Amino acid sequence: MGVPAEELASRIGNLQAGLAAQGVTAAVIIQRLDLYYYAGTVGLDYLVVPAAGEPLGLARHNPYEPGPWRTEVLRRREDLAGFLLELVGSGGRLGLELDVLPARVYLRLAQELKGYTLVDVSARIRRQRAVKSAWELEVLRATARKDLAVWSAVPDLLGRARTDLELAAAIEATARCQGHQGLIKFRAFNEEIYFSSVLAGPDGALPGPWDTPLSGKGVSPTFPQGTSGTLLRAGEPILIDYGGCYQGYVVDQSRLFARGYLPQDLRRGYEVAREIQEAVIETARPGVACGTLYEKALRLAEQAGLSEFFMGARRVPFIGHGVGLELDEWPVLARNSPVALEPGMVFALEPKFAFPGRGAVGLENCYAVTPTGVERLTLATDDLIIV
Amino acid sequence: MGVPAEELASRIGNLQAGLAAQGVTAAVIIQRLDLYYYAGTVGLDYLVVPAAGEPLGLARHNPYEPGPWRTEVLRRREDLAGFLLELVGSGGRLGLELDVLPARVYLRLAQELKGYTLVDVSARIRRQRAVKSAWELEVLRATARKDLAVWSAVPDLLGRARTDLELAAAIEATARCQGHQGLIKFRAFNEEIYFSSVLAGPDGALPGPWDTPLSGKGVSPTFPQGTSGTLLRAGEPILIDYGGCYQGYVVDQSRLFARGYLPQDLRRGYEVAREIQEAVIETARPGVACGTLYEKALRLAEQAGLSEFFMGARRVPFIGHGVGLELDEWPVLARNSPVALEPGMVFALEPKFAFPGRGAVGLENCYAVTPTGVERLTLATDDLIIV
Repeated sequence: MGVPAEELASRIGNLQAGLAAQGVTAAVIIQRLDLYYYAGTVGLDYLVVPAAGEPLGLARHNPYEPGPWRTEVLRRREDLAGFLLELVGSGGRLGLELDVLPARVYLRLAQELKGYTLVDVSARIRRQRAVKSAWELEVLRATARKDLAVWSAVPDLLGRARTDLELAAAIEATARCQGHQGLIKFRAFNEEIYFSSVLAGPDGALPGPWDTPLSGKGVSPTFPQGTSGTLLRAGEPILIDYGGCYQGYVVDQSRLFARGYLPQDLRRGYEVAREIQEAVIETARPGVACGTLYEKALRLAEQAGLSEFFMGARRVPFIGHGVGLELDEWPVLARNSPVALEPGMVFALEPKFAFPGRGAVGLENCYAVTPTGVERLTLATDDLIIV
Repeated sequence: MGVPAEELASRIGNLQAGLAAQGVTAAVIIQRLDLYYYAGTVGLDYLVVPAAGEPLGLARHNPYEPGPWRTEVLRRREDLAGFLLELVGSGGRLGLELDVLPARVYLRLAQELKGYTLVDVSARIRRQRAVKSAWELEVLRATARKDLAVWSAVPDLLGRARTDLELAAAIEATARCQGHQGLIKFRAFNEEIYFSSVLAGPDGALPGPWDTPLSGKGVSPTFPQGTSGTLLRAGEPILIDYGGCYQGYVVDQSRLFARGYLPQDLRRGYEVAREIQEAVIETARPGVACGTLYEKALRLAEQAGLSEFFMGARRVPFIGHGVGLELDEWPVLARNSPVALEPGMVFALEPKFAFPGRGAVGLENCYAVTPTGVERLTLATDDLIIV
């Protein structure tokens, strides 16, 4: 699905206005998803966006899918300097994605582009990408519709699976058959995720080294996260966290299942998570600070006497995160965050509780901020499903 | 599977000898797989390895699985400086993984660690990791044995699949059910892969923006790689590239399948790929330069009149790559590479041909360098399989 040309033009225009305001001569976009965002293709080495005028794509190989901007063949990576000189002259400030560019690439560019001052434009890019266009919202809605088919299959798949891995494999196969791309991208260094995570029984409450509320045990010491191969037992919570991604944009959803029954205190934990979701969503609208939403959720968890279990064994200090081309987009619904919601922002809200030795309960849905409140994107029922 | 303590001690000792020889006071390891390699756990924020003396692990959270080294709780990321001062004093050269550390992290550390000169130790780490221990070779052999079960299932799964996605989903589910971790890691910035790739018909010969011989079309504009949803048709090559990974270490394998028949010229291409494999393997032994192996492969492709199709539409200048915790480890069997094979190095050899408009043929196996030659790790039959 190609990004419409007028959409790309509007994104570039927005970035250029920001660069001009910041006194940046040009931005050099290198990370693949940022390239897709601004050029509509991941097949470039660089997209040079001057503060004014036409962008220039540079590709060592014929781009897989050409973008709408002028593209030149880059013989060697070092030729960037020559193209920049021609496009924006010497001197001035050059914007780079310093949050993701490896230090070695940065140091090489600092050598090759000695006449320029290198500055970080990643926050600008992330702020821009946090606010989705009407076209992006359509892609996200379509992703959520496809995911409904996956979620609808889960009760049946759960009935036939013996282990969390068998259930995960069946869910993943269902998703792949309808075109899931398999890969889900994190922007943050050292963070990573696989697209489905079935957390069954006590595993669900284990702490992990990642910045996620629930980690799971995993199968591997290098990736101790998610599904572990444990048997699915009656009366234990089975929390499924699944990220749908068919056209680059990811939709994040979690639901709670159980076999046979679920003990009353865990059922109550799930009900409190739903109440937190509803309360946060009633409050969420343009202008409301993300920190306010976090505080509201925490207060409700405290009032329910569940604060010690809130947001996992490590109690991560957030209750949700932006989603889009990456799973860790802005805004983050984090403690003390002054960032105000804006129309077009899309976030996953995931109130969850980890009961040590028992397992995890909670749910996760995605919402788009509208001019007056939020629109729910994810479509599966919120009900606890007992199979 | 925990890394044996004596193995960790030997790795640290090896690194320390290198640091001392390079005049580096200490290395600060941050990337998760390097942490696993040296500390046996991904649950640290930093592992400080002084050129002499005991390493120090620093973790903001209780590590998921403690390593064998002394570990202190790190309250804030900035406290690293204080621990370093205590451990190695002020001044001197500090080694960092500059190939993977984001520029922003590097610039922050440069501020916080002003008394030190920051140097790149990533090449040293990659050279060390390229040579596998007896324990690592056992993990790789076990991975290859598990993968044999996946490959043995493919003919049956192929018989029942209508599209490349259905076949990929079935292969992936088979692998996941026996504990595949789903994730496969690249070290290089902007490179990425999903663990299975079914390249059916003309899709297999498409060029892509990644540094891989074959790219495929993919399902998504942000990840135009691999399986695309195309129908599996009789007489077209179906090249399956699948990376097995159960305990962190990845084994890379590709095989060729077809439905009903495969045209004679494509069958011949596959035979030439096998001949290249055999010729390279006969030559490979300690002391032989990687570039020599590349040249040998290229000459055979030329002699067969197939050089224009060799190593994909982009004709990547290599015929193999190291594998281990990452899919793009060293050595690279690249054009002009003077790097000599050493006992313990493990590489995937992947002679492949892309016939435009027709598809891709070729195969891929993993080998460990022994004192006198190579040991093949991957176990599936090399035969073209017609279903």
